[in-house]
Amino acid sequence: MRVVDLIEKKKSGEILSKEEIDFLIDSLMNGSAPDYQLSAWLMAVYFKGLTEQETAYLTEAIINSGEVIDFGELTDAIVDKHSTGGVGDKVTITLIPLLAAAGVPVAKLSGRGLGHTGGTIDKLESIPGFNTQLSVTELIEQVQKINVAIGAQTQNLTPADGKLYALRDVTATVDSMPLIASSVVSKKIASGAKNIILDVKYGSGAFMKTPEDAVELSKLMVNIGKILNKSITAVITSMEEPLGRAIGNSLEVIESIEFLKGNINTGDVADLTYSFASIALLQLGHFSTQVEAKAFLKDLVESGKALEKFKELILAQGGNSEIIDNYDLFDLPAFKVECESKKSGHVHCIDAYKIAYGCKILGAGRERKTDPIDYSVGIYLNKKSGDWVNKGDVLYTIYSNDVDKTKLAQKCCDEAFVIDESKPSCNSMIYKIIRAEEEEDV
Amino acid sequence: MRVVDLIEKKKSGEILSKEEIDFLIDSLMNGSAPDYQLSAWLMAVYFKGLTEQETAYLTEAIINSGEVIDFGELTDAIVDKHSTGGVGDKVTITLIPLLAAAGVPVAKLSGRGLGHTGGTIDKLESIPGFNTQLSVTELIEQVQKINVAIGAQTQNLTPADGKLYALRDVTATVDSMPLIASSVVSKKIASGAKNIILDVKYGSGAFMKTPEDAVELSKLMVNIGKILNKSITAVITSMEEPLGRAIGNSLEVIESIEFLKGNINTGDVADLTYSFASIALLQLGHFSTQVEAKAFLKDLVESGKALEKFKELILAQGGNSEIIDNYDLFDLPAFKVECESKKSGHVHCIDAYKIAYGCKILGAGRERKTDPIDYSVGIYLNKKSGDWVNKGDVLYTIYSNDVDKTKLAQKCCDEAFVIDESKPSCNSMIYKIIRAEEEEDV
Repeated sequence: MRVVDLIEKKKSGEILSKEEIDFLIDSLMNGSAPDYQLSAWLMAVYFKGLTEQETAYLTEAIINSGEVIDFGELTDAIVDKHSTGGVGDKVTITLIPLLAAAGVPVAKLSGRGLGHTGGTIDKLESIPGFNTQLSVTELIEQVQKINVAIGAQTQNLTPADGKLYALRDVTATVDSMPLIASSVVSKKIASGAKNIILDVKYGSGAFMKTPEDAVELSKLMVNIGKILNKSITAVITSMEEPLGRAIGNSLEVIESIEFLKGNINTGDVADLTYSFASIALLQLGHFSTQVEAKAFLKDLVESGKALEKFKELILAQGGNSEIIDNYDLFDLPAFKVECESKKSGHVHCIDAYKIAYGCKILGAGRERKTDPIDYSVGIYLNKKSGDWVNKGDVLYTIYSNDVDKTKLAQKCCDEAFVIDESKPSCNSMIYKIIRAEEEEDV
Repeated sequence: MRVVDLIEKKKSGEILSKEEIDFLIDSLMNGSAPDYQLSAWLMAVYFKGLTEQETAYLTEAIINSGEVIDFGELTDAIVDKHSTGGVGDKVTITLIPLLAAAGVPVAKLSGRGLGHTGGTIDKLESIPGFNTQLSVTELIEQVQKINVAIGAQTQNLTPADGKLYALRDVTATVDSMPLIASSVVSKKIASGAKNIILDVKYGSGAFMKTPEDAVELSKLMVNIGKILNKSITAVITSMEEPLGRAIGNSLEVIESIEFLKGNINTGDVADLTYSFASIALLQLGHFSTQVEAKAFLKDLVESGKALEKFKELILAQGGNSEIIDNYDLFDLPAFKVECESKKSGHVHCIDAYKIAYGCKILGAGRERKTDPIDYSVGIYLNKKSGDWVNKGDVLYTIYSNDVDKTKLAQKCCDEAFVIDESKPSCNSMIYKIIRAEEEEDV
C-alpha cells in the first residue's frame, strides 16, 4: 500500500477501506508518511468528503493511536457531556451534581482551557483546595462512594488527532465536516464513555457558522456513534452571546452555585442544564418523556439535593465547601467597576468573542499550558439580550486586579453590546436535538 | 502575507495575484513555506484550477527561480522544439539539420534521458566522438558559423519546477492542467527561445490520455506564451505506439540518417519532421502556406542538403561523420535476433510502453543520472500498425549483448503487438495544431 495511491483514490472520489484508513493514520504516527502527503490527502478530503463509514473508520483509527480510558463496569452507566466550547459555558459544573443527585454515576475527565477563559478544570480549581489530579482508579472509587468525580484529563488520548489538527490548522483544512466529526467523536470515545451528549454550538464564534451546518455535523457524529456502538445525542445550541451572566473562573462557579441553590430558574444556563440532564435520563431509560424528567430534575434543585451533591463533591476532592455559603472565601479581586450604559434601549446582542477577549486581558485565561490564571477576575453581564436598559444603568461589571487592564477590557465590552430602541426577537437557545435516526425541533 | 491564507483563497476558488504567486514560489525556494503547505495548495489547485493569467504568473515565478539562458541577438531567430517524450522519438535529430539547411538558425539545449530509453543527447553521443558539452557561448559561436549546434543542458533551469514536481509526484497532484502547462512552458522559456513548437502527445502512455485533454492543455500553453510574449505553437500527436521503427540510441540515429538520405518518405517520422519544420518556417514568416514550406523542405532532403548539414554538425562537434555512410562504425551489439510472428493478421497496435520496457531490459536507458547506457542495443519494428504479417514473418528485431536479457525483452515485445485478421482504421499521427487564437484540424 502506498500513501500516494490513497491520495489519488480520495482525489478521484473513491471510498477508502478500513485497512487503507488505518494505514494512513499508522503512517502518520510512525512517521513513514511525510506531512506533505497527509496535507494533500486532507485537502482531497475537504473537496471529496468521506462517507459515514469512512469517517467512522477514521474515528476508530484516531482513537487507537493513543490511550483509551477504561471505566470498567461503570462504562455503561456513566454519561459524558462535551461542549465545543463557549464563552461563559459553566454547564458542566451545574450538570455534574444534578445528574449525580438524579442517580446517574458521573465520572468526568475534563480539560484545562487554552484560550480566552479557563476550562472546567480551571474553574473548579478556583475553589480553594479543590484537587483535580485524580487517577482513573481514584475517579472510579470516588464515583462508587458518592456517585460523582471530576478530574483533569492527563492521559495521552488521540495523539493522531493532535497531529492532524496541527496540520489542518496551517493548511486551510479545518472546515471539513468529516474531519471535525472524527476529531470530536474520537476524543469523547477515547475518554471512556458509552453515553455521550454533544453540545454543538453554532454562530459567528463557532466552527459551525449556521444552524444548518450544525445539523449536518450533528447527524454525522450521531451516526458515527451508532457505527461504533456508542449512544450519542447532539444538542444544537446558539453561541451568539455568552452563556449566563458570569464570565471568569470563580465568577462562573458562583453562578453555578446560584443555579444549584434554585436562584436561577430561567435563562440559558437553566435551560441547557435541565435539557442536557433530561436527555441523559431519557438516554439511560430512567424516564420516557422529557417533561417527566425535567420535573424530577427541578425537584432535585428545589429540594437542595443537587446543591448537597455539589458540596459532597467539593469535600471529596479536598475543597473548601464553605464557599457555597460564603463567596468571599474565593480569591477576591482588588476591585470591581460597574460600567454604565451610554444609551437607552433594548440589548440586541452581546458579542461573545469581544467579552471573552476582555476577560483574557484581565487575566482569566492562558495562551500556553504553563501560563498562570487569575481565578478572581472576570466580567458579569448585568444585562442580557432582550433586556431593556436606561442610559446610566449598570450594563456590566468588571472584576479586576489592574487599572490599565480594566480600561482595555472596558473598551472591548463596550464594543460587544449592541443596543437599539426596537425590541429584538428572542430565539430559543436550543435549536434542535439530534438522536440516532431522529431529530427534534425545540 | 501568510501561505495558509493563500491556500484558503485558492480552496475557495478565488484568484491569486502576481504578488501572491511570487510569494508562494519564493517561500518554496527559501524554505519558509513547509512542503505540507505547498502540497495542500497544489491539491486545492487541482480542484479549483488556475486562470490563464494565474498560470502565466506561476510560469514566470518558476522561470525566475533559476538561471535563464540568453542567446543574445540570436534569440528572435532561433526556434526550439519540445516533445513531452515518446518512445522512439528521434524527431529532434531529423529536424535540427533540416531547419538549419532551410536557413533557420538552430541552437538547441537538450536533456539526457531518465527512463526506459535515452534522450536526444544520449542518442547523439552514440556517434563516436560527438561532444555535447558546449557552453552557451560555444553554442552561439557554432550557430554563427554553421547555423546549427546542440548541447547538453547543464544549467540550473527552473529549480522551483523540480521541487514542485517532486512534491506533485508523491501527492497525486501531477494531473492538473495549469501545473503541467506552467512546468512545460517555464522550462522552454528558461531555455532561451522565443519561438517554441511543442509536441503534445496523447494516448495511454502520455500525460494526456485523450486528444480533448491534449487540446485543452495546448490552448492553455499557447495562451500563456502569448501573455509572456513568446510565440508558441502546439502540435497534438498520438503516441499510442513507438515513433518510427527504431528504438534504442544508435538505432534511432541510423533511422534519422535514413530519413535525411531521402530513404524514408512516408510514415510518422517523415510526417512529424516535415510538419514541425514547416510550422517553424511559417512561424518565422519564411512562407505563407504549409504546402509551399513542405515542398521546399522536401527538396532540401532530396537534394542532400539536409544530410550535408547533419554531416557539418557532426564534424563541428568532433564526431566521426563517416558513420553516415558506414553504420558499422557505431558501437555494434554482440548479436541480433529476428523475432517471428506467431500468427497471421494485421498489426492493430504496438504498446509503446512495453517496447520501451524491453529496451530498458536490454540496457538502452538509465534510472539514475550516473547509470551507464548501452548505445548499441535496441529494438527494430519490422512491422508497424496497419501492416499485414504472415505467421513466421519477422515482426521485430532485437539488438542485444546478453542472451538472458534478450529473452526477457522478447517476452515484453511479444505482449506489445496486437494482431488480428480485421483491418485496423489508421488515424493520422497529428491530431491538431494549436496556434495563438486559432486551431487547425489535420
